[in-house]
Amino acid sequence: MRNLTLMTDLYEITMLYGYFKSGMLERRAVFDMFYRRQGNMNYAVMAGNEQFKDYLENLRFDEEDIAYLRGLKLFDEAFLQYLSGLRFSCDVDMVPEGSIVYAGEPLVRVEGPLGQAQLIETALLNLVGHQTLIASKANRVARAALGDRVMEFGLRRAQGPDAGIWGARAAVIGGCTSTSNTLAGKMFDIPVSGTHAHSWVMSFESELAAFRAYAAAYPDSCLLLVDTFDTLRSGVPNAIQVFRELKARGGTPRGIRLDSGDLAYLSRKAREMLDEAGFPDTIIVASNDLDEYLIRDLKLQGARIDLWGVGTKLITGGETPALGGVYKMSALEENGTMMPKMKFSDNPEKVTLPGKKELYRVYDADGMAFADLITLADEGMDESQPLTLFDPKNTWKRTTLTGYRLQKMLQPFWRGERYVGPSLSVHDISDYRAKQEKHIWEEQLRPVNPEPPKVDLSQTLWDLRHELLLKGGKEGA
Amino acid sequence: MRNLTLMTDLYEITMLYGYFKSGMLERRAVFDMFYRRQGNMNYAVMAGNEQFKDYLENLRFDEEDIAYLRGLKLFDEAFLQYLSGLRFSCDVDMVPEGSIVYAGEPLVRVEGPLGQAQLIETALLNLVGHQTLIASKANRVARAALGDRVMEFGLRRAQGPDAGIWGARAAVIGGCTSTSNTLAGKMFDIPVSGTHAHSWVMSFESELAAFRAYAAAYPDSCLLLVDTFDTLRSGVPNAIQVFRELKARGGTPRGIRLDSGDLAYLSRKAREMLDEAGFPDTIIVASNDLDEYLIRDLKLQGARIDLWGVGTKLITGGETPALGGVYKMSALEENGTMMPKMKFSDNPEKVTLPGKKELYRVYDADGMAFADLITLADEGMDESQPLTLFDPKNTWKRTTLTGYRLQKMLQPFWRGERYVGPSLSVHDISDYRAKQEKHIWEEQLRPVNPEPPKVDLSQTLWDLRHELLLKGGKEGA
Repeated sequence: MRNLTLMTDLYEITMLYGYFKSGMLERRAVFDMFYRRQGNMNYAVMAGNEQFKDYLENLRFDEEDIAYLRGLKLFDEAFLQYLSGLRFSCDVDMVPEGSIVYAGEPLVRVEGPLGQAQLIETALLNLVGHQTLIASKANRVARAALGDRVMEFGLRRAQGPDAGIWGARAAVIGGCTSTSNTLAGKMFDIPVSGTHAHSWVMSFESELAAFRAYAAAYPDSCLLLVDTFDTLRSGVPNAIQVFRELKARGGTPRGIRLDSGDLAYLSRKAREMLDEAGFPDTIIVASNDLDEYLIRDLKLQGARIDLWGVGTKLITGGETPALGGVYKMSALEENGTMMPKMKFSDNPEKVTLPGKKELYRVYDADGMAFADLITLADEGMDESQPLTLFDPKNTWKRTTLTGYRLQKMLQPFWRGERYVGPSLSVHDISDYRAKQEKHIWEEQLRPVNPEPPKVDLSQTLWDLRHELLLKGGKEGA
Repeated sequence: MRNLTLMTDLYEITMLYGYFKSGMLERRAVFDMFYRRQGNMNYAVMAGNEQFKDYLENLRFDEEDIAYLRGLKLFDEAFLQYLSGLRFSCDVDMVPEGSIVYAGEPLVRVEGPLGQAQLIETALLNLVGHQTLIASKANRVARAALGDRVMEFGLRRAQGPDAGIWGARAAVIGGCTSTSNTLAGKMFDIPVSGTHAHSWVMSFESELAAFRAYAAAYPDSCLLLVDTFDTLRSGVPNAIQVFRELKARGGTPRGIRLDSGDLAYLSRKAREMLDEAGFPDTIIVASNDLDEYLIRDLKLQGARIDLWGVGTKLITGGETPALGGVYKMSALEENGTMMPKMKFSDNPEKVTLPGKKELYRVYDADGMAFADLITLADEGMDESQPLTLFDPKNTWKRTTLTGYRLQKMLQPFWRGERYVGPSLSVHDISDYRAKQEKHIWEEQLRPVNPEPPKVDLSQTLWDLRHELLLKGGKEGA
């Protein structure tokens, strides 16, 4: 695995040095990772835990790293010595991959020596931010396809190799069923698929010759790209002719792919032609700048598409190219006691939640997710007692639940110097996501103007926050 | 270096197998990489050549790769044997990194055996597409800063490790002067910088105590983040007090950083306060969701900012998260002769340019770039003769130049099995970009509604394209 220890903003290391010089490196601290709402993203699908695990397992400053840092002439030798012996030993709790999560919720909680807990900020935000973004986008796209299969094929437009490789994995977590990315297929055991490009057709003297050659190479999985010249007048008729020849030889035509033109119209017409020619079992694959909005509209217009190939807008996040993740200190040991910490801001949305916290999903008696609840970690929760929830901004809006069920969202991820989370295949994770999704109201999963989720605070946490806000700005004086 | 051979759409390999079965693998072919215009991007800054070189140097299917491909049950053993012996031996010509380029121009030309030339498509588009996108965005941002220094610090919001690491390099090619990314600093010898986060301030009993501790650790490079509580009433006064204490001890205050609030107002006020306190040499660093549009507006409003920290919108491309690169066949050997090839489309913008081509930049007598000219590769160009240029869409618009100079844009990159391009530092490349930029009209580099570049075709190329278009769509029959 790659050592990404230096893949950090320099300021994490300059701060570490500051804590080292101030004798504060080993003070116990708690940090939370959460994200701020972006654009149309009403919810997110958690992902990136796996690569973050790899990062932590390989987190050590090797000799080259130390030599480089020495060359910066910012640090003394005693500190470089400390760095070269550093092993990550914080407690980390994370929401499992595949979970449906919301803005403002603690998705990762890190507790341990201040220096170590600070150091991992950049890498955590990079890995979890990127993959959660893509899993979320993939889920929006897959939901728009209403059960049709969706293939991720954005590798060529991804922001570098990792974005393509780990993005493909995240896409499957979010709901895609396959990828064009061969390396991602190999690394994560994801089904890969792919047929041919326009260049294949252009390499032969005619489209018919190109299709025949392709059918000869793939008698049992022949899928033909039909839009190189004219989809309905040339591509589909030539495909049908080759399918007939193939069938006569005992082969199995698989279908056609459309990559331009009006996909609603062309897919309906192509379906008719294929059906009339006696190939009702062939599939129609479509691609061309697709995203959740276009897929929804094409389906509304009766498109007959069996497999959607989604590239650029999925693998980059499209209109929302970053999750907006942040990582904030919420508690720090002072004179042997953990003290809650929060960041103040003139912008109320940027005020953070103080203290070491837990995140619960509250299910109603019908098993649907009613709200998420953030509490302090040391609050006892008792499902046998009625639970009163209130809107943290409009506190008079209150509901009391009985017969509810609580799901503890933060799960042990790292203890001591070791990963302690589960070992799951990407398919297990995708199944988990599908199960979680069923308990979320459809109204909250709508791509445009959805019902906002309820993310509530316990009374104890709300009171602590309120108290700290009242003495707030003075801290700076 | 990483072996990214399998980092390809499966269809490149399924096509290779098709060519193998059809006996066409070794037919000589020419492909071009170019991009289609996206959003406000009137020009691009070429980047990604370096990582593409690494990719080609490591391009080989190892035993694991072959075993994986065998498991797909799509290919026969003879083909897997061929793959395991494959070494990349095409001729590649590329526009050098740091060049200013435009949509529709051949930026990479690959000539060699059809199978090999096809295979590299996905990786080429991924690497060059991503890095050219970021270098271009960085150039827009750096130009908006009008000579101020710009620091890239988007790593935490980048789409995975490669996007952060190679994105930082591309940002410097485009015009950034430093990065927060320590690993990119180490790999590419880019200046790194960084100070502290809000969490540093929150770790101490007061802002003043936090600033003092930071100044103690960094007596010669003390840069303080002043917006944790209240920038003008707490942050700047505390910074000034600590700067005074530091100066009395013989240290050197470096400056302050603003990360929220109105940066135009706060920077002007903070500058006044620092100047009045006797610290006119300190710098003001600013960050907070910056891009070329906001930097331009802040400068118009008299912001006093010396160093701009630009993160999310730079490292992801912001409004334009993909370059829109494509890779198309332009010629193929048929019966021993190279025949021009083009892709037809109902969408005129998607029709490609046939034949093996060259790209020239035409400079007028004043040394300014007048137009780019795409020709067939075998056209002789003679600078001593008058040159007639015409708009390829409105062919009556004609200009004849004398006393012009031609710059051949495509340069040898790969011959035989070896890289033959230059070995340049990222600083050399950035210098080259700065020199090229001086010869481009400012009107074409404007961030909004710029003058479109002239990208012309030679008469010979225009005629060939016209002729092929006339017999066009029939090819499919």
